[in-house]
Amino acid sequence: MRVKLIVEYDGTRYAGWQRQKNAVAVQQRLEEALWAVTGERQSVTGASRTDAGVHALGQCVHFDTRCGIPAEKFSFALNTRLPEDIRVVASARAADDFHARFMACGKRYRYLYCNRPHQSALARNFSWHVFWPLDVEKMRAAGQLLLGYRDFAAFMAAGSPVKDTRRTLTYLDVQREGDFVTLTVEGDGFLYNMVRIIAGNLNYVGQGKMPPEMLLKLLNGAPRRLGGPTAPPQGLRLERVFYPGDEASWHPPQGQTARET
Amino acid sequence: MRVKLIVEYDGTRYAGWQRQKNAVAVQQRLEEALWAVTGERQSVTGASRTDAGVHALGQCVHFDTRCGIPAEKFSFALNTRLPEDIRVVASARAADDFHARFMACGKRYRYLYCNRPHQSALARNFSWHVFWPLDVEKMRAAGQLLLGYRDFAAFMAAGSPVKDTRRTLTYLDVQREGDFVTLTVEGDGFLYNMVRIIAGNLNYVGQGKMPPEMLLKLLNGAPRRLGGPTAPPQGLRLERVFYPGDEASWHPPQGQTARET
Repeated sequence: MRVKLIVEYDGTRYAGWQRQKNAVAVQQRLEEALWAVTGERQSVTGASRTDAGVHALGQCVHFDTRCGIPAEKFSFALNTRLPEDIRVVASARAADDFHARFMACGKRYRYLYCNRPHQSALARNFSWHVFWPLDVEKMRAAGQLLLGYRDFAAFMAAGSPVKDTRRTLTYLDVQREGDFVTLTVEGDGFLYNMVRIIAGNLNYVGQGKMPPEMLLKLLNGAPRRLGGPTAPPQGLRLERVFYPGDEASWHPPQGQTARET
Repeated sequence: MRVKLIVEYDGTRYAGWQRQKNAVAVQQRLEEALWAVTGERQSVTGASRTDAGVHALGQCVHFDTRCGIPAEKFSFALNTRLPEDIRVVASARAADDFHARFMACGKRYRYLYCNRPHQSALARNFSWHVFWPLDVEKMRAAGQLLLGYRDFAAFMAAGSPVKDTRRTLTYLDVQREGDFVTLTVEGDGFLYNMVRIIAGNLNYVGQGKMPPEMLLKLLNGAPRRLGGPTAPPQGLRLERVFYPGDEASWHPPQGQTARET
């Protein structure tokens, strides 16, 4: 039986999603919990390989099991074995050929800036403190330049082995609520550090340190060093992963069908 | 010179606001930072003595100093000496007779419930996990029964030395946003554990475990054990303290002038 999980985690204490040799990853904790519950040494597959310090509200995960626990009870069983900063918020039976990573057709990420003179004590692990005032309208307008099927090579961490750097960004919004500014992006796939590099560039645009047109230059081959620095991980969270059939609440690509994973 | 601070803190690691003999309190950390910055051994006075595990977005604090640092720079100076889970978000010079505690004419608290089958990994230190669905309309309507100048003796922790248990609750609202339910209360003063006891009673009302009229019975002298249990501290945060002159955004008492501190 294949089981699908929706997993929320506070990435503060973890070396990211993916199992590591010398540090604790969320994937490892989930596999340990699964072992404790089922007695089976199974690996789990997540839709997004979030970095160290990055959070998730809706990481999607699948695994196979021969255990008799009903699929919808796995959330309760696993949570008894997981640390408090990782919670399985839902579990359900999935089709035998369901694949959390390869079948994902879209993802939504949020990036949170704390925009005031002092960092927030309560949101310190969930936001990037930006001292200088951000012009949210300007950030939102500039962000629209990134929409569509584009070559995001200048929005990828150096050393990434990916060859095809084209992705489709389907939605981008920036909203202010008091001292907090939220960047929301949706797309069919994201390169390594892509959302954090977008967040870093929009931070520069919002502070007036970079003209919005620089984003177009970066899309058109300008070297990455001309853009803003990568935003730190703790402001980022994976909100949701979309699959064919549940696309209603996301913003799928318009007018073209090219799609990367 | 008297200085007024607005202080935000994550209460998770602290034994509450007030300095303790055998545990670390927020007040102690602030006094230590003040000592490091000014070289003066000064005590600081906070408006609200929040419990262990309770948070604050807008604790108001005052202290006296002979140090030459401009009042509005104290926030920056103190933050270099404070742990990340305590931030001074603003500082300003106050009148020589300003008193953070005795001059407070109102306070706003928020209580956050995480209302879904599983606790939230991200909000685990900032919410109370309530499994059973809460009827928010019912909670809001029932909460209105508590408004006004009342005897809140049944809404005070046992053993509290306060004699006059009458207070004026000026505002109460309950709102749902997705899986989270927020209770907001404002009043001219709160007894020990009063907001958490209100939150615990409204939890019972929201689950249908207690009829709303029980709140009236409690106000009219029914013993506390007939109500719901006290809600845990981590869901509570002090949002703001109001002083004469800045009352515009709060809901002051209507039609009567009695006021307790």
